[in-house]
Amino acid sequence: MAGPSSAVPGFRFSGIHCGIKAKQKDLALIVSDAPASAAAVFTRSSVVGAPVEVSRQRIRSGMARAVIVNSGVSNVAMGERGIRDALRMTRLAGGALGCDAEEVLVASTGVIGEPLPMAAIARGVKSAAANLSATGLGDAAEAIRTTDTFAKIASRRLVLGGRSITLAGIAKGSGMIEPDMATMLAFLMTDATASPAFLRGVLRRVSDDTFNRVTVDGETSTSDSVFLLANGAAEAPKLRVRGDPDAERFEEALHGIAESLARDLARDGEGATRLVTVRIEGARNAAEARAAARRVANSMLVKTAIFGGDPNWGRILQTIGAERIRLDLARTRIRLCGITVFRNGAPSGAAARRRAEAKLAAAEVEIAVDLGVGRHSARMWTCDLSGEYVRINAEYTT
Amino acid sequence: MAGPSSAVPGFRFSGIHCGIKAKQKDLALIVSDAPASAAAVFTRSSVVGAPVEVSRQRIRSGMARAVIVNSGVSNVAMGERGIRDALRMTRLAGGALGCDAEEVLVASTGVIGEPLPMAAIARGVKSAAANLSATGLGDAAEAIRTTDTFAKIASRRLVLGGRSITLAGIAKGSGMIEPDMATMLAFLMTDATASPAFLRGVLRRVSDDTFNRVTVDGETSTSDSVFLLANGAAEAPKLRVRGDPDAERFEEALHGIAESLARDLARDGEGATRLVTVRIEGARNAAEARAAARRVANSMLVKTAIFGGDPNWGRILQTIGAERIRLDLARTRIRLCGITVFRNGAPSGAAARRRAEAKLAAAEVEIAVDLGVGRHSARMWTCDLSGEYVRINAEYTT
Repeated sequence: MAGPSSAVPGFRFSGIHCGIKAKQKDLALIVSDAPASAAAVFTRSSVVGAPVEVSRQRIRSGMARAVIVNSGVSNVAMGERGIRDALRMTRLAGGALGCDAEEVLVASTGVIGEPLPMAAIARGVKSAAANLSATGLGDAAEAIRTTDTFAKIASRRLVLGGRSITLAGIAKGSGMIEPDMATMLAFLMTDATASPAFLRGVLRRVSDDTFNRVTVDGETSTSDSVFLLANGAAEAPKLRVRGDPDAERFEEALHGIAESLARDLARDGEGATRLVTVRIEGARNAAEARAAARRVANSMLVKTAIFGGDPNWGRILQTIGAERIRLDLARTRIRLCGITVFRNGAPSGAAARRRAEAKLAAAEVEIAVDLGVGRHSARMWTCDLSGEYVRINAEYTT
Repeated sequence: MAGPSSAVPGFRFSGIHCGIKAKQKDLALIVSDAPASAAAVFTRSSVVGAPVEVSRQRIRSGMARAVIVNSGVSNVAMGERGIRDALRMTRLAGGALGCDAEEVLVASTGVIGEPLPMAAIARGVKSAAANLSATGLGDAAEAIRTTDTFAKIASRRLVLGGRSITLAGIAKGSGMIEPDMATMLAFLMTDATASPAFLRGVLRRVSDDTFNRVTVDGETSTSDSVFLLANGAAEAPKLRVRGDPDAERFEEALHGIAESLARDLARDGEGATRLVTVRIEGARNAAEARAAARRVANSMLVKTAIFGGDPNWGRILQTIGAERIRLDLARTRIRLCGITVFRNGAPSGAAARRRAEAKLAAAEVEIAVDLGVGRHSARMWTCDLSGEYVRINAEYTT
């Protein structure tokens, strides 16, 4: 939840309605009072939106003052007009904040193939700048939503070099949405002091282990972006190198926020009724562990079985096999919510099945598979596949 | 449809109910009166059923007399008992037919993790052998069904060296079924004369371009098997090498049968309301063409859009991008049922959208994408994703 606890010293936030969407908030502004060290990771799609192109260029400086974000229209596949509009959003924000447009990052999420309503956005940026507040993170989290059913916020405190440090983050949904495209956006802020190079390393490692371990339907958006800004307002010792105890504690805290947001993304996948954690153990190597986890998490058959509360170990085994992952069937063990349902090459019987069925009724469930051929493991978060997912994605009107 | 036209000289068929399933036919027998040249392709899953292990061993001889197939139980993940049961099925068939068990191939499809009811199968094999008939192909096609909504049969005639040749085939569904696993099974028979090596080459090429271009939900079964038997009853010249005109015409005819069966598999995917052909053109290389076609055909978002009759080019573009396929957005062209909906980096407008919407209401639809960066193409068949798919796969009872 937003509130005073998610204030980050030296940052102000706002989230307003400017008219891209009919009624909901659709424009968010994140501002650091002082220039902040900055890092970002972006979608690896071969088709990217104009805001990604602009922000990818801007982040090279390693510094930023602000992020302007709209929801409702994604500014993707709009050619040169898209780039012009994305640049103009940063100029509008820079003008309203009294900083250079080069210091502003930009992100958009929503419908593809439609132009941004720039007149509404121009008015909106002024209004967003006028409404900036230290306690506005909740409003910003609201304004970046598309079909998300709840706003996603996380924050942590820790002490570094005797100074109290705050980290906070907001994110929006990874279902495919609004109605054409998904976008996973996350914005992470801290008042710690850090070099851009340090932030880049931390953000890459943390994202790989959290945001990149979420799947709703196996799709990657054209606009996925994660930003991390550190403005140094806490006046703690500067974080420069990995391995230093303070750096490790900072990374652990950032990991905690990112993991909380990532789990919320899976929990709020389109039509989801359950958050599903997939754990693979005993893989031959790291790549096979990750591939097996991703395969299970994306299997339509596994996801429909979870929706139906069905302890269907056969589908789990089948989809891992279809990915051609090495396993030893005689040593393979499948546990659902801690209940072993397959072991020693055979199912565990009716009693175990009934116990697993009862556990699968919960809102959070776990699929754990030991492949029995090595020591590597991997994890993914996903959600179940319901009729509601089909309804959302089949019955849309522009 | 089955009938006299799908009789293949020198082959007899039967399909009966032996009691694996409650009421439907569940045991098929295919017999060549003389030893036939034989070839097969199998699932490339790292988890395979006992019948696949047995048939993979048997097919090395390049000769077969019969195929025994059951539906209802797949004989997968049953350890040594599974192998014993699969071998016993071939011994029972060999005994009833008066041939060596080594000359009998075997396939099973259905529930995983349950033992085959061998007493029922033993009685069934005798009954199947007693019911063999030259016109029994339709019964065999019925008996290999699991959740398929219709039996799949195709046949062709051609003249080779002045002799009339018949090719016929049956197949069963590629949706995930019954309730744990999919299996795609196909059995192709001809009275042509051919060497096993020739059959292996033809079957591999034809399968790659037909059965391997079908996807319902991106899954590969533990039991997928395609068999090709040529018994020489037509006394046509022996087919030995590729490139020979007769060999080319034979391959073309086999391709026609396999394509017809493959399209029927996609058309009859679980919950399907539409047969969808995906065509990729203009790809940088063959691998990217195939990967793009497969990606589009498996995209849950594209498949739900087709179910909803929505000409959603954005999702098509997004999922190709997510696979990191190279494309030139300014030269990319997307056509839905022949209507261009995206070209020159921009959507084609409301009129094209309405025309595409009208076309998407048909039972067979086509998605064609020119990536604009090369000369390679690929094709896939799939079906749409409906709420019925979720219902079938979520609400099962053993």
